[in-house]
Amino acid sequence: MKVCKFGGTSVASAEQIRKVVDIVVSDPSRKIVVVSAPGKRFSEDIKVTDLLIDLADTSLAGKDPTDALHNVVERYQQIAEGLDLDSGIAQIIEQDLIRRLKKDQSDEILYIDSLKAAGEDNNAKLIAAYFQHIGIDAEYVNPREGGLLVNLRPERVRALPEGNEKLCTLRDKKGIVVFPGFFGYTEDGTLRTFNRGGSDITGALLAAATNAELYENFTDVDCVFSANPTVIENPQAIDTMTYREMRELAYAGFTVFHEEALVPAFRHKIPVCIKNTNNPSAPGTMIVRNRDHALQSVVGIAADNGFSTLFVDKYLMNLEIGFGRHLLQILEEEEIPYEHTPSGIDNLSVIIRSEHLTDEKEARIINRIETELHPDDVHFQHDYSMVVLVGEGMRHTRGLAARAASAIARTGANIEMINQGSSEVSLVFGIQEKDENLVLRELYQEFFTEVPAH
Amino acid sequence: MKVCKFGGTSVASAEQIRKVVDIVVSDPSRKIVVVSAPGKRFSEDIKVTDLLIDLADTSLAGKDPTDALHNVVERYQQIAEGLDLDSGIAQIIEQDLIRRLKKDQSDEILYIDSLKAAGEDNNAKLIAAYFQHIGIDAEYVNPREGGLLVNLRPERVRALPEGNEKLCTLRDKKGIVVFPGFFGYTEDGTLRTFNRGGSDITGALLAAATNAELYENFTDVDCVFSANPTVIENPQAIDTMTYREMRELAYAGFTVFHEEALVPAFRHKIPVCIKNTNNPSAPGTMIVRNRDHALQSVVGIAADNGFSTLFVDKYLMNLEIGFGRHLLQILEEEEIPYEHTPSGIDNLSVIIRSEHLTDEKEARIINRIETELHPDDVHFQHDYSMVVLVGEGMRHTRGLAARAASAIARTGANIEMINQGSSEVSLVFGIQEKDENLVLRELYQEFFTEVPAH
Repeated sequence: MKVCKFGGTSVASAEQIRKVVDIVVSDPSRKIVVVSAPGKRFSEDIKVTDLLIDLADTSLAGKDPTDALHNVVERYQQIAEGLDLDSGIAQIIEQDLIRRLKKDQSDEILYIDSLKAAGEDNNAKLIAAYFQHIGIDAEYVNPREGGLLVNLRPERVRALPEGNEKLCTLRDKKGIVVFPGFFGYTEDGTLRTFNRGGSDITGALLAAATNAELYENFTDVDCVFSANPTVIENPQAIDTMTYREMRELAYAGFTVFHEEALVPAFRHKIPVCIKNTNNPSAPGTMIVRNRDHALQSVVGIAADNGFSTLFVDKYLMNLEIGFGRHLLQILEEEEIPYEHTPSGIDNLSVIIRSEHLTDEKEARIINRIETELHPDDVHFQHDYSMVVLVGEGMRHTRGLAARAASAIARTGANIEMINQGSSEVSLVFGIQEKDENLVLRELYQEFFTEVPAH
Repeated sequence: MKVCKFGGTSVASAEQIRKVVDIVVSDPSRKIVVVSAPGKRFSEDIKVTDLLIDLADTSLAGKDPTDALHNVVERYQQIAEGLDLDSGIAQIIEQDLIRRLKKDQSDEILYIDSLKAAGEDNNAKLIAAYFQHIGIDAEYVNPREGGLLVNLRPERVRALPEGNEKLCTLRDKKGIVVFPGFFGYTEDGTLRTFNRGGSDITGALLAAATNAELYENFTDVDCVFSANPTVIENPQAIDTMTYREMRELAYAGFTVFHEEALVPAFRHKIPVCIKNTNNPSAPGTMIVRNRDHALQSVVGIAADNGFSTLFVDKYLMNLEIGFGRHLLQILEEEEIPYEHTPSGIDNLSVIIRSEHLTDEKEARIINRIETELHPDDVHFQHDYSMVVLVGEGMRHTRGLAARAASAIARTGANIEMINQGSSEVSLVFGIQEKDENLVLRELYQEFFTEVPAH
């Protein structure tokens, strides 16, 4: 049994929804279908979720919501007409939205949540209706009835395991289950949405709770590429990678999934496949727990810019037990996450994404370090890029670091930082931002072209 | 004005002391002479300091100290005779030791301190007497009169800056000042010794307090070598290195100085020269604040074994602000210092010297990490070596990491860890212990032979 999730562009129009239905019926094991709200049909289009946020804002501002409501209903109406459905479904959706608009506005976040979730919820109803319309046994399941339980406000929303037993019974439904992504309900029936990209979470939760053989995530690309296609022409597709490899690639520019979306699948060891709704015969990219890394030591190369370095130097630093911990505590108290902490005997660098820093924060941090740790030197440096080679088999491949460092040397770029730890699946090079694309191209050439250029 | 310190082997016998005197008088700027206790004259010999500890233990145990006392006095007597001094000085020394033996034993540590310090103190008296004997204006200065103030027990002993003004007046003495190393006095006149190797500290303190142009540290080697001479045949001498380079080399096997000995010189920017009492015309090794690193990017290669790795893996670790800090706090609470913390997005390794670990500590640490941090994996690995390339100019030398990694690859050794941080003077490779000498030889070949072998 497979759980399939279809993203916004996959369910943005009647034409796209026909593709979805074709995909689902082509494999009888595709049993549970999680859908997003209608996304963009063309690059300047507006997502239904954004129309709904506009509708909620209008209503909360006390303005007349008629036009904003019309914009949403019209999108569903167009889809319904394109699918030859009668006007009943559009009326159901309009009534649903009016009911949501009239809800209590005392908690603005919950009010917006309820309206935002209408995008997925009504799309699921519509798609279920289309399955039925063409004679396929299918059923819309609301997350409340389905068992998608979440925790109460004001804590950050997350799914509660108490719902899993009920979710598991979705396996036993006779027909296809159409389930809206993006939201769940608290024990007392309050709707709460996951973060944006939250339909991925719903899909992974259902795949985990029903112990699916596979979680298929349909989007609008054929696969995950081994390098950024805007820098590397026609990069190789990744056919299989591990969760750990996906995570390391996500570190620097690969945004396959929202970071937390795959946690339920990872914890329950459910394999994930990324596929293209517009080209379903392409094999896609599999994300698995383990792979035979003898076949390919480097699976991908990621690169990202916008990094800064906090450098601290103090004679005899290594004799001060607690120095590193104290430094990290100062950053923690400023709520600054960090990436790496390369160190010498008397110095320590902390690599930080520059977006977490401001001039004031930097001044405050330097002041605290000077006052509390009495260093010989402390300063920030900016405009670094990190280039990350990722692969489960890297650690066991002799000479790989030499090949990578030699490739970087050929570009004339200086290596500012190297980070490789035992048992790891990544090798990270810090370079100057200006060298990023040059280095990425040379590394790609080194590890992904069959006959190296040298 | 220069401060010269002579180590134990440099003042172990009459013959050695004649060399010391020749060295001092050969340069009129050699004004302050800090001396150790007589050290070993041959490899099975016993240092006077060890004879004194034996004497103190005998006395504290309530046994007859006559033989132990005789052993100490005899050593000085032999030296005095060898220097053609009359028996007066040996009698002074014997009376001094008897006076110390009779002191209050209620604080055993202070009692032992007083006897241990007699080694340096009496050697300084003897050497000053010899200077005078051959007609050179010289004066023994006791650290109490000289101004070498230290803090009270039970705190760890360290010099107090309040004494510096008085120490500085040593510059103005008419003749040569002979000053015993290794100990100072508290404000109320209690004698306390520095750690072993503490004569280096005395020398550095005096050089700093008198703002000497140079601190000359005379020992029994011509220089500091660029690599371990027991592994590399005839390694290059290091003619000049910076304090930072010396520190990084000390990290892995280079024990030029006791770690804290050079702090006063470092803080006051006093250059240090390591020279050989037995070959004073050899230029020695200069330790300076800055050097022209364009001349030589790599100054030395150090290697040391006995490292362990604590590996922690947790999906989405990077989203948990405080994870790294919490992990280091657990180590801090177990009083375990660490060397490096290489990291991936979801994992973190901590490199620790194995001597700080026991089976019980490892089990306790793993248990705490599992309970407090809920990782997906946590384990220790052992038997690693660290090989460290050191040089101020390394960061600005393109292709250096590639050359180093390629050299290691040629040996067939696997690189388990790489650590290089921005602004650093070292590049650290973690390898398996069994590969250490092979890797050291290949790296030495790569960076220190004029025509590389490939």
